[in-house]
Amino acid sequence: MAQRKIVVLGGALAGPWAAARARETDDRAKITLVTRGRAVSYAVGGLPYFLSREVSEPGELNKQRAAFFRNYYGVDVQTGVDVKGIDPEKRRVSTSAGSLSYDALVYALGARSLVPEIVSGASNLSTLRTLPDLKKIDRLIKRKDAAVTIIGGGYYGVEAADCLARRGCRVTLVEKSPLLLSDFSPDASRLAAEALRKIGVDVRNGATIEAVKRKGRAITALNIDGDHVATKLVVVTSGVTPRTEIFSEAGGRLHRDGTIKVDDRCETNLPGVFATSICVSHKHAVTKKPIWTAQAADADKSAQVAGENAAGGSAKLAPTLGTSIVRAGSLTLARTGLTRGDAVRERETARVYGRSRDDFFPGSAELTITLSFDGRTRRVIGAEVLGEDGVDKRIDVLATAITGKLKVDQVAQLDLAYSPPYGTVRDPINAVGTIARQSEDVRAWAPVELMIKTSDTLVWDVRTPKQRKAHPFAATAVSLKKLREKKRELKKAKMVVFLSEDGREGYLAARIAKGLGCPDAGYLSGGLRAWREAEF
Amino acid sequence: MAQRKIVVLGGALAGPWAAARARETDDRAKITLVTRGRAVSYAVGGLPYFLSREVSEPGELNKQRAAFFRNYYGVDVQTGVDVKGIDPEKRRVSTSAGSLSYDALVYALGARSLVPEIVSGASNLSTLRTLPDLKKIDRLIKRKDAAVTIIGGGYYGVEAADCLARRGCRVTLVEKSPLLLSDFSPDASRLAAEALRKIGVDVRNGATIEAVKRKGRAITALNIDGDHVATKLVVVTSGVTPRTEIFSEAGGRLHRDGTIKVDDRCETNLPGVFATSICVSHKHAVTKKPIWTAQAADADKSAQVAGENAAGGSAKLAPTLGTSIVRAGSLTLARTGLTRGDAVRERETARVYGRSRDDFFPGSAELTITLSFDGRTRRVIGAEVLGEDGVDKRIDVLATAITGKLKVDQVAQLDLAYSPPYGTVRDPINAVGTIARQSEDVRAWAPVELMIKTSDTLVWDVRTPKQRKAHPFAATAVSLKKLREKKRELKKAKMVVFLSEDGREGYLAARIAKGLGCPDAGYLSGGLRAWREAEF
Repeated sequence: MAQRKIVVLGGALAGPWAAARARETDDRAKITLVTRGRAVSYAVGGLPYFLSREVSEPGELNKQRAAFFRNYYGVDVQTGVDVKGIDPEKRRVSTSAGSLSYDALVYALGARSLVPEIVSGASNLSTLRTLPDLKKIDRLIKRKDAAVTIIGGGYYGVEAADCLARRGCRVTLVEKSPLLLSDFSPDASRLAAEALRKIGVDVRNGATIEAVKRKGRAITALNIDGDHVATKLVVVTSGVTPRTEIFSEAGGRLHRDGTIKVDDRCETNLPGVFATSICVSHKHAVTKKPIWTAQAADADKSAQVAGENAAGGSAKLAPTLGTSIVRAGSLTLARTGLTRGDAVRERETARVYGRSRDDFFPGSAELTITLSFDGRTRRVIGAEVLGEDGVDKRIDVLATAITGKLKVDQVAQLDLAYSPPYGTVRDPINAVGTIARQSEDVRAWAPVELMIKTSDTLVWDVRTPKQRKAHPFAATAVSLKKLREKKRELKKAKMVVFLSEDGREGYLAARIAKGLGCPDAGYLSGGLRAWREAEF
Repeated sequence: MAQRKIVVLGGALAGPWAAARARETDDRAKITLVTRGRAVSYAVGGLPYFLSREVSEPGELNKQRAAFFRNYYGVDVQTGVDVKGIDPEKRRVSTSAGSLSYDALVYALGARSLVPEIVSGASNLSTLRTLPDLKKIDRLIKRKDAAVTIIGGGYYGVEAADCLARRGCRVTLVEKSPLLLSDFSPDASRLAAEALRKIGVDVRNGATIEAVKRKGRAITALNIDGDHVATKLVVVTSGVTPRTEIFSEAGGRLHRDGTIKVDDRCETNLPGVFATSICVSHKHAVTKKPIWTAQAADADKSAQVAGENAAGGSAKLAPTLGTSIVRAGSLTLARTGLTRGDAVRERETARVYGRSRDDFFPGSAELTITLSFDGRTRRVIGAEVLGEDGVDKRIDVLATAITGKLKVDQVAQLDLAYSPPYGTVRDPINAVGTIARQSEDVRAWAPVELMIKTSDTLVWDVRTPKQRKAHPFAATAVSLKKLREKKRELKKAKMVVFLSEDGREGYLAARIAKGLGCPDAGYLSGGLRAWREAEF
């Protein structure tokens, strides 16, 4: 066979690694990588951590330089080159450095940042996506306590706020919607804001930038909901849009959000054209529908598949769970799978407040797991984990549980590694699986269901007088020990929900009530603590 | 129905939690817990960590006292009571405090420590299983640099050595077999010994205690393989034996190792008698055969099942993976599933050396994962993980992967959470899955297979001259770039194995060789580094 010509468009993460995988698959192919930037493969996700000085040198984020891909993988690397267009019939790409023909093309141009009109064009404004961005920001915050305004409270905004506050900057984080981190639950979002405030970030959610004050080309202050906020630097993290115009102009098919439609081989509708990087959508493992996660780990996976298949391989892309993790002050927030909405009709949730390690061991911290599962099949379909220790472990285990189609009773008995430095004998994962499993016996109520309950539902509070005094709640107080005396009332009741502090006694009460003949007994999952965190 | 009478025998972990679960299942039952010790439910696994002073008070390990089980769970707790016998026909237990009748009995008497004859009876000798043991040891090492001899290099011995060395004691660890931690691979065992030596432990494996010197009732020195080792204290961690005599005398059926035979309801052959704690064997998830793990997390799981079923429930015990984790100095070692032996005939392995987090992030450390999988079904069946950071996360993910019957290509694309403080964009788990997946294309050789290769196998070393110089190995040096020139030789070869430093270039070479028509091309998995760690 003649030598295969493979052209890869795009640097940073997906392009270079697709090229590397193509080489591993076909050692004779001619592989050309075209990238606009000077750096070939840098750690986009690592940029904020130089600002916090957890990374001591920007060079640490840029270890795989052009020479590495040239020498080790035999890739012809062309840096500082712009892509102009694709001719899918002639299989040619035109670039600022000339034209290239291909047998297979890997399109990996990623996404560009969106900059709100009101701040655009300012000299002291930067996104945080490239090494030059990083250098610019670093230059502008020479004074460690510089005032910085971050626009956009998604993953990048929260990471930037966290890292700049650690550095000592006076950070204002502006988010126009009422909640930060829109992938997460409202509870989680509020806790993230609280954690950022604890390290000094002025979090302004549901906020509008009404005006900006400029001096020459620089922004010196913003008017946020009427408040004057002086600033030395504006960092824009308010979202990205897929860079897919060139693909689309060549006749390539897009989803409505502008991302590229690929099949499970990462192939597009254009012959010989594969796509990867954060400009493609992935199939969601639970809903089976395309989802745009814009996550680096997804880009890395599609890069492997696109690179291998461009070189004649037959790799298949696994569906995504949209797993993600973010640090906000001392809090870590993580999610995976389906945690909200009604894509699964009988979605139920279970919540546990556990410990990351034995409570007697140093570093042990509280951990909150909210598990979503399908009430019909009993399979785990999503999870959210929050805490100050061991969050990454639990979310990864639960992502694996979803991939393995585990049922909640299997999660309850997962054989996880125990020794005091690492966990607890009954891991919070086992505990939340047990709680979920128990919802087959008695109904587990989510806080929102309690709020919209029908008027004929009995709401009985089985807490101790001391607990009731600490957090009053309008409900009938009933002692767990005297519940049996209420047999007649319970048998007549249409529906009863028991409230306790963290859910456990509520569950016991519901079981007793059911045993006494109450037709529909339930309890508030996570107890009144979960109710308070939901902050209706 | 009449009030159900449930008697639970045994304290520490399994007994009390079986009693608690019984109460959750039947709120009206009369539940009696009988235990020999004074403490009802203490953290056995936490004991060593008071010796290291990571736990500041023994009281921290003994939080669930009798009053808790009495008041919260309504259990009649009888401490300081010995069990004498069981009459299964009359359903009665006789104890030092009288006789108790039962409808259901939960047998949870755990195990007793084995003390080698040569040291038995000494006044300065202790096991490390109870709170009184802990106090005794602590009293004898008042001088922080006290000389301590630990006999037995299993989990308990390694933990004790690790913790006492952290405290400042001069520790000698004696193990009669050639390797510590017999559940682990020989490579892992050697690295554990090395890690303990680094923190000052005198590890003596394959050692024999030839004599002991006593002064009065105290041992003052041991003769170990001819060496005189003075000691202030002897800690015995040389194994346990199930405490099942009383059960057996009543006609209860045991396995050959003395553990109790239970079904998946934790029921024994005696009517109404359930068993839990580390005196029972569990079904292994991969081999389906009974295995005695003596792990606390397994005991906790069987306690839930035995307690629920004793109270009329219908819980089923999931099989075990024998997951375990242990700290040895700065090293963490963990294992799960089937990692050795031939219970699965076509067991293959893949190894990766990865990073726990992005290498630019503080705390990042090397991580070694050795994956076992079934070459026929491609399913993961076991794993061993070693490193100084993030070991617990990876072993738990892989235990979950085995439970979910994941294939190696699913592991290669698991959607794990990425952000620099927590991991790498391509987790070592993804990497080891990829390596395992690739063994379908070309054969992955384990170091031991290289050692026993047939004489007509070509062994070609594709490392750089510099790498070859650093670690010489007797093989034919071949440059990866010039491999195509060897086409004729490769086509004629019956079998060829390529050696590289960490496996990657070896894999590439094998693929090229296969493409050139070599019928059986393979590479050394984990490269010569894995060979060196195997230390033949």
